[in-house]
Amino acid sequence: MQFHTEYLTLRTKKHREYVNITLQVEEILRKSGIQEGMILVSAMHITAGIYINDWENGLIKDIDTWLEKLAPENPDYHHHNTGEDNGDAHLKRILINHQVTVPITDGKLDLGPWEQIFYAEFDGQRKKRVILKALGF
Amino acid sequence: MQFHTEYLTLRTKKHREYVNITLQVEEILRKSGIQEGMILVSAMHITAGIYINDWENGLIKDIDTWLEKLAPENPDYHHHNTGEDNGDAHLKRILINHQVTVPITDGKLDLGPWEQIFYAEFDGQRKKRVILKALGF
Amino acid sequence: MQFHTEYLTLRTKKHREYVNITLQVEEILRKSGIQEGMILVSAMHITAGIYINDWENGLIKDIDTWLEKLAPENPDYHHHNTGEDNGDAHLKRILINHQVTVPITDGKLDLGPWEQIFYAEFDGQRKKRVILKALGF
Repeated sequence: MQFHTEYLTLRTKKHREYVNITLQVEEILRKSGIQEGMILVSAMHITAGIYINDWENGLIKDIDTWLEKLAPENPDYHHHNTGEDNGDAHLKRILINHQVTVPITDGKLDLGPWEQIFYAEFDGQRKKRVILKALGF
Repeated sequence: MQFHTEYLTLRTKKHREYVNITLQVEEILRKSGIQEGMILVSAMHITAGIYINDWENGLIKDIDTWLEKLAPENPDYHHHNTGEDNGDAHLKRILINHQVTVPITDGKLDLGPWEQIFYAEFDGQRKKRVILKALGF
Repeated sequence: MQFHTEYLTLRTKKHREYVNITLQVEEILRKSGIQEGMILVSAMHITAGIYINDWENGLIKDIDTWLEKLAPENPDYHHHNTGEDNGDAHLKRILINHQVTVPITDGKLDLGPWEQIFYAEFDGQRKKRVILKALGF
């Protein structure tokens, strides 16, 4: 039984961006040598999230439009009295959630046929970290 | 320390349906023999989710109405340019989330008094899978 | 490898309240002696949640306003035919989610710079429990 921990650093070009990180997670799993277990993937910044869904550009546009509709950019958030301007990004992170746990079976991420792991950035253009912690044999 | 993995296959009669799978999860826990640990329950299809809430038919109706209000069926999703018609189901999965981790204590699911585990189907009438991976002693 | 389980009991003064429980989680981690692992923090009542975000009072107000907008108090929920009056609280729990898994590295919660763990109460003024289960070395 072992734990294996790594940190990804991401810096998106756009203010909001959805980055497929499945290959990076697979690479870290390979390095760990774990055959049977789980891996936690968790965004360490409170204006970013992690989710698992389809890798299809139309859907990614739909997700972005939907998040903006339900948790819109708005100058009037109380949070902005601190000098911040990213109240919407905190709410979008809550909506999409900030972490997933991916099962590992036979040395592979045990994902469904269309499941891909995404990093969702809601206040980008600067360095942010994601923690990955795998456990298993 | 051991891992125990199983897959449930569900095929709902309705397009959208909420299925209490607590008994199946308990059965798999019993088979595993684990007394102390955790079990991950995760929907492997990107138009279905897993959540823990009350087993009360009125509430289930409220949840369904609420999901449809916040993530409605709509012909205009970009995702539909691929030939799909289930854009709303992808968004509903994000809203309700696709996985839970249930603690195991003294050989039982350590749930609160009213907590029940549900499979939420948003594009049903076909076979779909849920992965369960328990770890512990 | 060990598991360590504890239960927090919370009784908020207000009907809806957001309580920073990071110090309590750290205290339980210290008691467990685990240096490397993960800790699951999960609300056992179906009208409360757990989330990780910023500890800033303006943002907490924004989160509360936003939850009430997307999942409002409303006398007309079907769930209220059972005699309950807290339909909105069940939906708010789904929106904010009911659990987090926090990685443990070098004996500490491996959180990002602004990440704090919150208990979100949506139907308070009575005793409710949160389960914490840590695993690791």
